[in-house]
Amino acid sequence: MVQSFLQNFVHYFALRGFLLILLGALLISKPAGGQQPALNLMPRPSSVQAGTGSLRLDSSFSVALTGYSEPRLERGVERFLERLARQTAISLNSKVAKSGQATLLIRTDHASKEIQEVGEDESYSLEVTPAGAKLAAPTPLGTLHGLQTFVQLVDVSSDSLAAPAVTIQDRPRFPWRGLMIDSARHFTPLDVIRRNLDGMEALKLDVFHWHLSDNQGFRVESKSFPKLQELGSAGLYYTQVEIRDVIAYARDRGIRVVPEFDMPGHSTSWFVGYPELASAPGPYEIERRWGVFDAAMDPTKESTYKFLDRFIEEMAKLFPDQFFHVGGDEVNGKQWDANKEIQEFMRAHGIQNNQALQAYFNKRLQPIVEKHGKSMIGWDEILDPTLPKDITVQSWRGQASLAAAAKQGYRGILSNGYYLDLGWPASRHYAVDPISGDAANLSPEEQKRILGGESCIWAEYVDAQNIDSRIWPRNASIAERLWSPADVRDPASMYARLDFVATRLEWLGLTHKTSYWQMLHRIAGAATPDEFAALHTLTDQLEPVKDYTREQTAPAEPTSLTPMNRVVDAVPLESAAGRRFGELVDKFIAVSCLDTDAGARLRRQFTAWRDNDGRLEPLAKRSFLVREVAERSRDLSALGTIGLAALDAIAKRQPAPGSWKTRQLATIEQLKKQKAQLLLLPAPAVQKLVEAAAAGGPCMAAK
Amino acid sequence: MVQSFLQNFVHYFALRGFLLILLGALLISKPAGGQQPALNLMPRPSSVQAGTGSLRLDSSFSVALTGYSEPRLERGVERFLERLARQTAISLNSKVAKSGQATLLIRTDHASKEIQEVGEDESYSLEVTPAGAKLAAPTPLGTLHGLQTFVQLVDVSSDSLAAPAVTIQDRPRFPWRGLMIDSARHFTPLDVIRRNLDGMEALKLDVFHWHLSDNQGFRVESKSFPKLQELGSAGLYYTQVEIRDVIAYARDRGIRVVPEFDMPGHSTSWFVGYPELASAPGPYEIERRWGVFDAAMDPTKESTYKFLDRFIEEMAKLFPDQFFHVGGDEVNGKQWDANKEIQEFMRAHGIQNNQALQAYFNKRLQPIVEKHGKSMIGWDEILDPTLPKDITVQSWRGQASLAAAAKQGYRGILSNGYYLDLGWPASRHYAVDPISGDAANLSPEEQKRILGGESCIWAEYVDAQNIDSRIWPRNASIAERLWSPADVRDPASMYARLDFVATRLEWLGLTHKTSYWQMLHRIAGAATPDEFAALHTLTDQLEPVKDYTREQTAPAEPTSLTPMNRVVDAVPLESAAGRRFGELVDKFIAVSCLDTDAGARLRRQFTAWRDNDGRLEPLAKRSFLVREVAERSRDLSALGTIGLAALDAIAKRQPAPGSWKTRQLATIEQLKKQKAQLLLLPAPAVQKLVEAAAAGGPCMAAK
Repeated sequence: MVQSFLQNFVHYFALRGFLLILLGALLISKPAGGQQPALNLMPRPSSVQAGTGSLRLDSSFSVALTGYSEPRLERGVERFLERLARQTAISLNSKVAKSGQATLLIRTDHASKEIQEVGEDESYSLEVTPAGAKLAAPTPLGTLHGLQTFVQLVDVSSDSLAAPAVTIQDRPRFPWRGLMIDSARHFTPLDVIRRNLDGMEALKLDVFHWHLSDNQGFRVESKSFPKLQELGSAGLYYTQVEIRDVIAYARDRGIRVVPEFDMPGHSTSWFVGYPELASAPGPYEIERRWGVFDAAMDPTKESTYKFLDRFIEEMAKLFPDQFFHVGGDEVNGKQWDANKEIQEFMRAHGIQNNQALQAYFNKRLQPIVEKHGKSMIGWDEILDPTLPKDITVQSWRGQASLAAAAKQGYRGILSNGYYLDLGWPASRHYAVDPISGDAANLSPEEQKRILGGESCIWAEYVDAQNIDSRIWPRNASIAERLWSPADVRDPASMYARLDFVATRLEWLGLTHKTSYWQMLHRIAGAATPDEFAALHTLTDQLEPVKDYTREQTAPAEPTSLTPMNRVVDAVPLESAAGRRFGELVDKFIAVSCLDTDAGARLRRQFTAWRDNDGRLEPLAKRSFLVREVAERSRDLSALGTIGLAALDAIAKRQPAPGSWKTRQLATIEQLKKQKAQLLLLPAPAVQKLVEAAAAGGPCMAAK
Repeated sequence: MVQSFLQNFVHYFALRGFLLILLGALLISKPAGGQQPALNLMPRPSSVQAGTGSLRLDSSFSVALTGYSEPRLERGVERFLERLARQTAISLNSKVAKSGQATLLIRTDHASKEIQEVGEDESYSLEVTPAGAKLAAPTPLGTLHGLQTFVQLVDVSSDSLAAPAVTIQDRPRFPWRGLMIDSARHFTPLDVIRRNLDGMEALKLDVFHWHLSDNQGFRVESKSFPKLQELGSAGLYYTQVEIRDVIAYARDRGIRVVPEFDMPGHSTSWFVGYPELASAPGPYEIERRWGVFDAAMDPTKESTYKFLDRFIEEMAKLFPDQFFHVGGDEVNGKQWDANKEIQEFMRAHGIQNNQALQAYFNKRLQPIVEKHGKSMIGWDEILDPTLPKDITVQSWRGQASLAAAAKQGYRGILSNGYYLDLGWPASRHYAVDPISGDAANLSPEEQKRILGGESCIWAEYVDAQNIDSRIWPRNASIAERLWSPADVRDPASMYARLDFVATRLEWLGLTHKTSYWQMLHRIAGAATPDEFAALHTLTDQLEPVKDYTREQTAPAEPTSLTPMNRVVDAVPLESAAGRRFGELVDKFIAVSCLDTDAGARLRRQFTAWRDNDGRLEPLAKRSFLVREVAERSRDLSALGTIGLAALDAIAKRQPAPGSWKTRQLATIEQLKKQKAQLLLLPAPAVQKLVEAAAAGGPCMAAK
């Protein structure tokens, strides 16, 4: 049997690359320096050396700041102690020590820049022994990162709450590690912004890119042009005081705030108050629908640049960061085409097409941005060889444009592959590397121009209640990609740590798990515990449709006023339960379907699914929000029945008949289609099982 | 079979009073006015008449305030809209209408008192029809209550989010419906206070009694005597600005704030800064232990009253409420006995004993309180016939003292039976009525002096993380007792609505459910999902030891610095899962063990318990916090095994042998004992099942 088992295993290897992953995991988990301890650190540090024993946490724990200090560091330590107290329930009230007697001795060498810059030293080293811990960093940025690492180390052990002895040397791979939040399509309340900055700090992200204007809303108070927010926001905007608070909050966490004002397109909300900026007369209303619209600034009028000069002057003072994001994406050019004066201007200036007209706009815009002390950044549409090399390109359409920009001497950051709203699994984001594809062939000098990357959450289907579950925990995988060495890329290890981090992020105040649960309760109304459990069993196996299919599959045209209270709005974009089910099937098949424990668990799961629809039925009658997923419930039960049949066939160790297989696969093909904008996650895994049951392969050969 | 079924049923009735409860429920659910709709209203209104159809909620929903208005009402409506939007995800941004065209038309007749008083009109009427809703109230207090009722009415229905058509007339049974929070033993952060005020508003409670000083801490900034907070609080106190904010926050929600400064006992924290107040020389330190201590103010020194005069003058200005709580409980008299001057004073003034000395103290204190415009309230120890009738007695030791006070002409409120920290089930609190026991025999005039009641949460084992789960949802049952008509007392109906309210309270920001989950995660550390599920299965069946046994069962003497991170700190004081299991057993036995669905569910549950310990074992090795409950885990598995055996016996329809029964009961008796300060909740229910399996009774007779 051993030989046949191995043969099957090798067979399987050829088939599915499973061993390759396993091998990769083994190699990564054993670095040159010694045995890698099984620590739940995320992002994984550059270098980790396990020590012996652990540092026990008790109420005598104290921290001392030595070397350079500043109020930000003191606040950072207070926050650290508060968080540590919360996660241990050990009283650590005012335990900032001045002397060298502290349990955790921090040494910071010197200040970082008053206004945080790209590429500052963020490194730190952390040594934990049973007797105490030392954190050293050249700048406060490194110190703040090191405190986060320490917090992650502390966990319950067999005899205490403790941090394992360890020596860590750590520094980021990329200097620009960002998260973009779209506060224009749906407004993001300030407490949501703050808790997401907390999450960013925990994952060592250092850029909050704030998308502050779009067709659907202008979200910043302008004193120079008050009609921007007064008429362009439906009252949902940030005052300048609030903006300054957010910037200070972010700076305290080592995070830069880069504002984006999207122009010349994506700008309907500007035109409600200032129609003279547009390329068609108006009047304009705040856009409520989603998509790419015609409205665009008129790049041919001098008044446009006068307006932007005054506007950018004001915003450049409000936002201290060196970078100023001008958007620049998705101008469809229709208003330009239809405007005779613009067409005349283009002819007169030899501007051949709309792309060239936008380049003209950017060439006028860039000096304004520069005049107010900022460096211009925009989406990849702004890339044009006639622009000065100071601009930075944020690549959303593909990695090729990033490489092209770097080759031409421009700096760039990657967002293609990091769009959180597309609903990809974390592993898929995790596999995207800024230095890959065309970029892998760049010279080292060119590669240096790739500053890093940014995940983006576009807010068509994101509001204050579900935003956390659209960002987290998947965003942690991108944070690790941007911080950790390039060879840290085992998805199994990533997922194990992601699960851990996901729980801890909730301790910080993020609500990605609890909001799902609360939204399900709304959907269920006054359900019995049994009915609620049945709903939960179903929704745990559902994911929203992926990529850009949300609008085309919607039951009615969605707008910014559409209530987001349906199951598709509540369920996480990646289901952990669904992923684990897939892993269980893989595990079962990988060992020739001989893993009796996995087999028994599959059987329990399939039985529960088969019976689940009956449990849910009364609730589906009472709640229209549950009724919307009634068909998916029947589908899950059908999948359970198929799974049980496949297990029965496998148990007999005789390949199931081809006709049976054909029938099951046809059914599964139907089940794979979206309904109520929801995908039935386990369908592909059950398909694998059906195929295994019908094949003459591993699951049948071993006796 | 029918006859035998009925016989068994009647047999059972005689045995367990089940039918009585059922009958009661039927009677209560059918008031004279017509059919009572199954609404999840809590507290249940005085009168509810179901209408036809329902009022659909959509983004056109609007509210208009007519009649008397004030900023508090406008803020109340904004809060109402925000909450409604959160619980429906329907955009209701700025939908306060001025005209009579609103969906919800509010009419308030006149202002309530600037400083809210006991016994103001809090009534309101609410009429919902498919075309709109009307809320009318004499004062803003009633309006605020009515808005809470409306929020509770809105739920998912078979075709929309809607409020059912209904006509409600409502007013409170008692004017004083309070919650006392002890912020002295463990400090309560302000956000915790605020979210609990939100919870109180939702349940129509109107008094926040704030226990602000005790041996373990003095929690208010005094400008007259700054050493009170500087030396008496370890830095954990409320500034006067913060206090004013809390009072304003409470007033906005129709809640009075009654401060308590406990004296002459429970006052060690005062003496740290001002030892001259005490009856023994000191020096004093903040008390870290729990219990009754010797330190007490010296009632014989004039300087004591001078101090209190100045102190109460300051606090009377800070706290606008008419009532001023002076504590007065648990003076053990030891310092008085040991102090020669005090003994001399007593002899000189003919004061016979310590009780009389405390009465002397109160007779000196009362005019001071009155001089500063306040009415004195204290725990029942202050009751003394020589005190003026203006004082109010808060009865914690028993209902008899409440009745005695009322008979003597004093006003009183009941807290005996409402101590949330004792870990009673909600049903037990619910059964306690202020007008019962001795009070039932009072004249109507005397009964009127019983103003209501107050639940109390004493904070020896309560911190910021677990406080919500110590107060909620059980407190809702007390809120209903104090608001609803006396005949609203069916525990089954109460629990059904409590489950619903419990979920909704979390939407307000309370954390009674999520904090349990988060604390379990800390206890589990880096557990696998399977291990975590096993821990959850166990802890769902555990409750902390009850009444005053927490200290005597502790593994080491607990203090205010003891980390509250153990399972006993995390699990709710009443387990909903445990209660439901008990109900399931009752249901199964009630129908002669013929309910096959209930039987199957019991078998599944027992099997899961039996197998659970094996699943939990690896985690118990890795986490010392899980290891503490390892024995309870084995106990639960043992209970599962016993339950399965009982089911097997019942399935055979032959009484199990007496020897088997004796053995099982002996084991269960052991399992009933506390371990790790935890009770195994289902033990008594399994005992019932064993008894049923061994009896010649209903479960055996029916074939």
